[in-house]
Amino acid sequence: MKVSELGEFGLIDLLAEIVSKPSPRQKLLIGIGDDAATWQSHSGITLATTDSLIQGVHFTPDTTGWRDLGWKALAVSLSDIAAMGGTPLYALVSLALPGNTEVDDVAELYKGVAEAADKFDVAIAGGDTDSSTIIVVNTAVFGSGQAGCLLTRSAASVGDKIAVTGWLGGAGGGLKMLTDKIKFAGKDTNALKQAFHHPLPRIAEGQLLSQQGVKAAIDISDGLLADLGHICRQSRVGARVDIDSVPVHPAVIAGFGDKALDMALGGGEDYELLFTASGDTIEKVKKAASCQITIIGTITDDIGNIKLANKEGKPYTPAGVGWQHFRQ
Amino acid sequence: MKVSELGEFGLIDLLAEIVSKPSPRQKLLIGIGDDAATWQSHSGITLATTDSLIQGVHFTPDTTGWRDLGWKALAVSLSDIAAMGGTPLYALVSLALPGNTEVDDVAELYKGVAEAADKFDVAIAGGDTDSSTIIVVNTAVFGSGQAGCLLTRSAASVGDKIAVTGWLGGAGGGLKMLTDKIKFAGKDTNALKQAFHHPLPRIAEGQLLSQQGVKAAIDISDGLLADLGHICRQSRVGARVDIDSVPVHPAVIAGFGDKALDMALGGGEDYELLFTASGDTIEKVKKAASCQITIIGTITDDIGNIKLANKEGKPYTPAGVGWQHFRQ
Repeated sequence: MKVSELGEFGLIDLLAEIVSKPSPRQKLLIGIGDDAATWQSHSGITLATTDSLIQGVHFTPDTTGWRDLGWKALAVSLSDIAAMGGTPLYALVSLALPGNTEVDDVAELYKGVAEAADKFDVAIAGGDTDSSTIIVVNTAVFGSGQAGCLLTRSAASVGDKIAVTGWLGGAGGGLKMLTDKIKFAGKDTNALKQAFHHPLPRIAEGQLLSQQGVKAAIDISDGLLADLGHICRQSRVGARVDIDSVPVHPAVIAGFGDKALDMALGGGEDYELLFTASGDTIEKVKKAASCQITIIGTITDDIGNIKLANKEGKPYTPAGVGWQHFRQ
Repeated sequence: MKVSELGEFGLIDLLAEIVSKPSPRQKLLIGIGDDAATWQSHSGITLATTDSLIQGVHFTPDTTGWRDLGWKALAVSLSDIAAMGGTPLYALVSLALPGNTEVDDVAELYKGVAEAADKFDVAIAGGDTDSSTIIVVNTAVFGSGQAGCLLTRSAASVGDKIAVTGWLGGAGGGLKMLTDKIKFAGKDTNALKQAFHHPLPRIAEGQLLSQQGVKAAIDISDGLLADLGHICRQSRVGARVDIDSVPVHPAVIAGFGDKALDMALGGGEDYELLFTASGDTIEKVKKAASCQITIIGTITDDIGNIKLANKEGKPYTPAGVGWQHFRQ
């Protein structure tokens, strides 16, 4: 059935059924179906973020399935809450869809949203559905944080070590594999698809960083160098990156060889956390974290400049510097 | 300058400059520029809503100027907070824009958003910018409300009178005037343009309704009959509407004659409030309100059916029943 046959209000009913009942932690008073969602707020700090996935820019129907699209649409906003060290609680989901979209496809999309919401204990509180010529999925996520414990882009200090969670380049490698229709070994294919379609926002890790005294962090959505650039700009510092330390995703090395490093530096959409802190603090984080933590460089006083070099100090110039919307 | 020349991060800087500093009422801790916005929350009830304006569906660049687009994008979400009887506090704004959009145009759009934010004392806390093939402006608005005082779509009771604020049909008339390039007298032209481009969310009126004991309300975005239909469906009631009482916008009567009533019944986007309550409660609202309040009918036990008739009881069948996305 097409969305145009079901109509807007039938679609809203269908989506409301897919969303699971809120957990007791979530004091949702009015969810999907009224003018606005309402919830009981505890005193403290509220975090809010919004992100869009746009057909032809962030995904194409050829390379991204509906359920993956739904998962990722929520995951990218959750990742922003992770990058502040917060706890996500509620989400609003806006769907813009062509009228000839299959209703089954929209239901799949919303199941993907609901899966991510369940996994990270977030209530889908409401949203909006509109007809459109292209598919746009916008999510707005609200969460809580503790005063004095937020991770910001502006808190990096000269002398801080720079570290990242997990592996880098997997999402960029996955996108390239899918768009160029490259065939890899089954294990690598799955790992790269998963990295691109099914990012795991580092919620627990963000909270851990905050608890361990880290102050500066960002999630890697635009690419390692671009996001490190955001930290440098907002903290008025520079950075030195040891390219031999960058944790390039093994499947990217296996699949793309000597292009793998540039994909890890500039690929984007890995949704790992990039953070800075003293060496001692990062050692504490390493001990407590359940994922890999890798030190990749140092914050310098060379404001706005990021210098890359290998272990021997030989400078390195990457092929690209990450994603920026609108730039041709 | 094109957005593609300025780039995403230059654009974000520009937008952050346009947004005015938050007022002392707004305890914004981190605004535009980090992964998520954060604010100090007071205990109580939080309201959240989201809405999109999509090129080709809600507006075309021919008929809607950039500043009007920005105003309206925020106003339509504020109207949802009004329809709950709440107080809007914070907004996130997501812009999806083609790369060849003029930066001056985007600045105008954001000035329109900022005007609406100033007018209704809302802080622009953050947002998102993305490249796209069409223009999409999404706003998510958060506000506060009081437990037990929220206006919902599900609280109408049999015997309640049905009332509306202000005039109806102005936005639909304005859209028709603009798309069909109809020429009217200057006064009517301005009134209809204003109604379509510059809706005034009924924030103060929503709060007044809540204070006076009204329980059921919705804002008229899809059209009087469609939105009354939402109330009937969610309250499991029916309605009888006296068509001679419907407050049709004078400029619509002047411009569209015998089509004016149908435009008031089905036109949509007036962003007036439709509410139900006892006759006594509505009399109290009338005395306290600074805008026109008109009783247009009665809630019945004829579940799901809306009957229209004139003062003599002669049934009336309207030409359309309001806007529904996706329906062809």
